[in-house]
Amino acid sequence: MRVLGVDPGLTRCGLGVVDGLPGRRVRLVHVGVATSSADLDVDQRLLLIERRLEEWLEEHAPDTVAVERVFAQHNVRTVMGTAQVAGLAMVAAARRRIPVALHTPSEVKAAVTGNGRADKAQVQTMVARLLQLDELPRPADAADALALAICHLWRPAGALGAPQRPAAAMTAAQRAWAAAEQAARR
Amino acid sequence: MRVLGVDPGLTRCGLGVVDGLPGRRVRLVHVGVATSSADLDVDQRLLLIERRLEEWLEEHAPDTVAVERVFAQHNVRTVMGTAQVAGLAMVAAARRRIPVALHTPSEVKAAVTGNGRADKAQVQTMVARLLQLDELPRPADAADALALAICHLWRPAGALGAPQRPAAAMTAAQRAWAAAEQAARR
Repeated sequence: MRVLGVDPGLTRCGLGVVDGLPGRRVRLVHVGVATSSADLDVDQRLLLIERRLEEWLEEHAPDTVAVERVFAQHNVRTVMGTAQVAGLAMVAAARRRIPVALHTPSEVKAAVTGNGRADKAQVQTMVARLLQLDELPRPADAADALALAICHLWRPAGALGAPQRPAAAMTAAQRAWAAAEQAARR
Repeated sequence: MRVLGVDPGLTRCGLGVVDGLPGRRVRLVHVGVATSSADLDVDQRLLLIERRLEEWLEEHAPDTVAVERVFAQHNVRTVMGTAQVAGLAMVAAARRRIPVALHTPSEVKAAVTGNGRADKAQVQTMVARLLQLDELPRPADAADALALAICHLWRPAGALGAPQRPAAAMTAAQRAWAAAEQAARR
């Protein structure tokens, strides 16, 4: 199973492709960052990022695209661009009929470090260890994209990638996972 | 000059096409609403809205796409979807090399009613009057999309559709317009 993790951002959008199976070793396929200059108008910046997303989907043909779930409470100055890039990633996947999963930052941190409040350095260290990399993945956005992909590969069997649907539509196991994830966020 | 106004939203996205020239009568070309059901996952909802946006661009070939500028301070529950649909509209235009303009809600209200704090009913009434419609455009999202298009057609000569660029890059006239617009927002 191949997952493309997307850490959305207008200035830097982290992209990481990881192969693996639940509970098994994960393997790095490719990692990088799509960037756009703040000197450009927003529509042109979004277009640049979209093209990079399309290239990555075309080249790596992931089975799932895992996108960081963006909250309105995040950094107000950058949250609109972040939300827009997350939307582009979702639509680019949906156009190709590739399933989309959303994972919260704390869910991702908990998956790779065991601690939903881990800092960026800890996430980078664990991503490098889990993928057996000789160097830390840089910048942090690239490491976060890889962590998102690992988080998705390692989610509990039967868990939804993201509780995109209301809780009533979940199985008992899915509800338990969602509750645990909620608890980790606090 | 033909403008497609987009009042972004995930549940209802207002779309309005208006022909006109600065200071001249405006004419309704087409108006409607793209919708997506809250029962669907977000990626599928965004894909539905994107397809409708593509159809409108294809069918009506606007010279400019005017999109409501979304602020992070707006309704937190719906702002992420709104921002994502605004992003899709910008990218769909940019892919076709159609210029994109962003206008704030108060700029739009001021353009069609003379009052940056006008209520929805007043905007609907004035949009119907300016376009010589027999009925009020409904829902409000459709009227807002038409108001956006009219606002863009009637902006002062030389004014940017949106201060997408920093104030330093503006001419004196553009700065004056931006300042007046800022004042109207208060």
